[in-house]
Amino acid sequence: MDLREIRVNAGRLRNTLEKMAEIGGTPGGGVHRLALSDDDKQARDLLIRWLREGEIEIKVDEMGNIFGLRPGKDLSLPPVMSGSHIDSQPKGGRFDGIYGVMATLEVLRTIQEKGIRTTRSIMIVDWTNEEGSRFSPAMAGSGVWAGKLEREWVYTRRDLQGRAFGEELERIGYKGKEPAKRWPIQAYFELHIEQGPILEKVGKTIGVPMGIVGISWYDVEIEGKANQVGPTPMEGRNDALCAAAEMILQVEALPVEMGGNMVATVGEIHNAPNSRNIIPGQVQFTVDLRSWDDLLLDRAGKELRNHFQRIAAQRGCPARMEKIWNVEHTAFDGSLVARIAKIAEEIGYSSHSLVSGAGHDATYVNQVGPTAMIFVPSIGGRSHVEVENTRWEDCEAGANVLLQCILQAAS
Amino acid sequence: MDLREIRVNAGRLRNTLEKMAEIGGTPGGGVHRLALSDDDKQARDLLIRWLREGEIEIKVDEMGNIFGLRPGKDLSLPPVMSGSHIDSQPKGGRFDGIYGVMATLEVLRTIQEKGIRTTRSIMIVDWTNEEGSRFSPAMAGSGVWAGKLEREWVYTRRDLQGRAFGEELERIGYKGKEPAKRWPIQAYFELHIEQGPILEKVGKTIGVPMGIVGISWYDVEIEGKANQVGPTPMEGRNDALCAAAEMILQVEALPVEMGGNMVATVGEIHNAPNSRNIIPGQVQFTVDLRSWDDLLLDRAGKELRNHFQRIAAQRGCPARMEKIWNVEHTAFDGSLVARIAKIAEEIGYSSHSLVSGAGHDATYVNQVGPTAMIFVPSIGGRSHVEVENTRWEDCEAGANVLLQCILQAAS
Repeated sequence: MDLREIRVNAGRLRNTLEKMAEIGGTPGGGVHRLALSDDDKQARDLLIRWLREGEIEIKVDEMGNIFGLRPGKDLSLPPVMSGSHIDSQPKGGRFDGIYGVMATLEVLRTIQEKGIRTTRSIMIVDWTNEEGSRFSPAMAGSGVWAGKLEREWVYTRRDLQGRAFGEELERIGYKGKEPAKRWPIQAYFELHIEQGPILEKVGKTIGVPMGIVGISWYDVEIEGKANQVGPTPMEGRNDALCAAAEMILQVEALPVEMGGNMVATVGEIHNAPNSRNIIPGQVQFTVDLRSWDDLLLDRAGKELRNHFQRIAAQRGCPARMEKIWNVEHTAFDGSLVARIAKIAEEIGYSSHSLVSGAGHDATYVNQVGPTAMIFVPSIGGRSHVEVENTRWEDCEAGANVLLQCILQAAS
Repeated sequence: MDLREIRVNAGRLRNTLEKMAEIGGTPGGGVHRLALSDDDKQARDLLIRWLREGEIEIKVDEMGNIFGLRPGKDLSLPPVMSGSHIDSQPKGGRFDGIYGVMATLEVLRTIQEKGIRTTRSIMIVDWTNEEGSRFSPAMAGSGVWAGKLEREWVYTRRDLQGRAFGEELERIGYKGKEPAKRWPIQAYFELHIEQGPILEKVGKTIGVPMGIVGISWYDVEIEGKANQVGPTPMEGRNDALCAAAEMILQVEALPVEMGGNMVATVGEIHNAPNSRNIIPGQVQFTVDLRSWDDLLLDRAGKELRNHFQRIAAQRGCPARMEKIWNVEHTAFDGSLVARIAKIAEEIGYSSHSLVSGAGHDATYVNQVGPTAMIFVPSIGGRSHVEVENTRWEDCEAGANVLLQCILQAAS
């Protein structure tokens, strides 16, 4: 049997994805499966049932990360790891995260079915709370496992209802006994939807990211002067929302201004007192800057600070801009990246080199061992929304590339 | 005794204002006394206790409006009415509304003390829910009384906790038996803080508004395309918040553009999903336009619509702009307005003619009988905030003008 001829069962993969999408499924066709919710638990239970049917050994660590091991011939060698996450954004899509887990399950089923014994063990993983939308920070499970986040600190993080991460983890029965602590790996693969429009635009099937962009997060707060709208003339107003509006347009213009490859976004805004007939007295908003070029990112932040100070001074609305998070770009393992492109070509899929604009568990795992990602196209580039979609033949293509990656790495 | 020589007791007025400010008083020095709350009830109870001490006849109507009558010599003549409202904005100030009620109480006490019998009856009034911040619409009590709002509809209005106006009115014990129905009045005076910076700027003590500006309210909704910020390039985004930012600055520029005397404000904004790392997919905001010139107001609304459609088209973010409320300007009774200015001069206070930029119960009462307002300076022009303030000597001046207005009208 030529292992290079082996392919996944596309119908079975689709089936598992559709079954999973029922858990936390929304009327709008998406998935609402927040980390450590009842739906997360139900999806985890189903994954474990499926893994047990495939005679996979299950381990759950203190962070709720689920590992499933298919032992290789030589148990002394570090395993090949592959997976992603089960949790979703609020009213998110049916592919983000779960596709990488279900495709790995399909790879294991295919290998099992064909009776293949690999040299190295293969390990499937579901990382807890990748999204970070219920409990901040994102990528909490992989972060603790990789030794980059403090487990006890993550336990104390609370959702908007005040419930703590640690309590919720225990409540759904996934606070495991295994230490959440890195171990040597031969390779880590994460198959994921692109979440952007590039593959669709260039008409390619497999995206091969060189790595993940650097990200800077800022919080901005503007002090204006709240006042009754009617009796307060336009001149002499200190309208915090008008100041914010000017700043938001400045953020939008920043990438062109910096002349580099970056994106800049204001995603969140809070206006106070937020009343129809009161001049806004205080506005808070967020800024998200991303670029592969860490230096550019740093200069962009400084440039923005200058703009904000100028606008604040002109309008008599003092502004504070605080950098709350910064992560430099992640470069994936060069030989793994090259291998993915080569495998795509061998199977007959077109591929395209790009950069991931979104963070992934791969960011942390990359600090433990050789890591790379495989992308498939997102229809219309949409993600984190209910209409998030990927064609079934592309799901199949990604899984076939993953299968060959894993087989080669485990041989 | 020359009635023109009579003055109020400034110390007593200050005392009642300070006592009242304790009810719903905030640590920030303001007042949080929402309509039909327990604090509203407590303040009403105190007002009634004080009125009873002055042998005033109390009537409470179906809307909870409180009327106190000091009978004149000729009960067949329509009374002279004066008052304002007890309720406040959330974390509002200690003068807005309550000053007009307490000053009228002080006028009644002064008249009683001097043993004056007026020809016409004098009636003090506290109108229910002027602010409209707990239950929309504003000026509900005077609106129903004047026949401009439907009582049963107002009863069904709910606050953010879902409690109905009618139920809350009953709960605090102020759903009276008297029909909330207009009756003939000789004159209505409403003494109020200016809530703007003009009197302070021109250095005058008494403001004499010709009337109240016209107001147009619009709701705007913008549809963008929600998406992950990282993987979505700047070109091709449909960012609803950036579109809103451009529109907000357009609203701010509108008064200069129209070349007329008007104000234009965006006070409220809602952004969805309002998440740091998702491109805003939907934004709603409000527009408040005010001008004495009804035609200008109308043209300004049309101009704004054109701007919004242009911005929406350029950004691929469809926008809807709906006019949800419009009220033309209110011109007060010319001879009452002239009399206020004359009385101020006679007493020795400087005065200034202006226009009220805020709505008041006087808007509705003006449709029932001759109506006018008296303004006193707001320090820094601030109102609807905890630091709202007016100097005690200005409070005294306004009450003295009110006293003479009432005495002349009731003779």
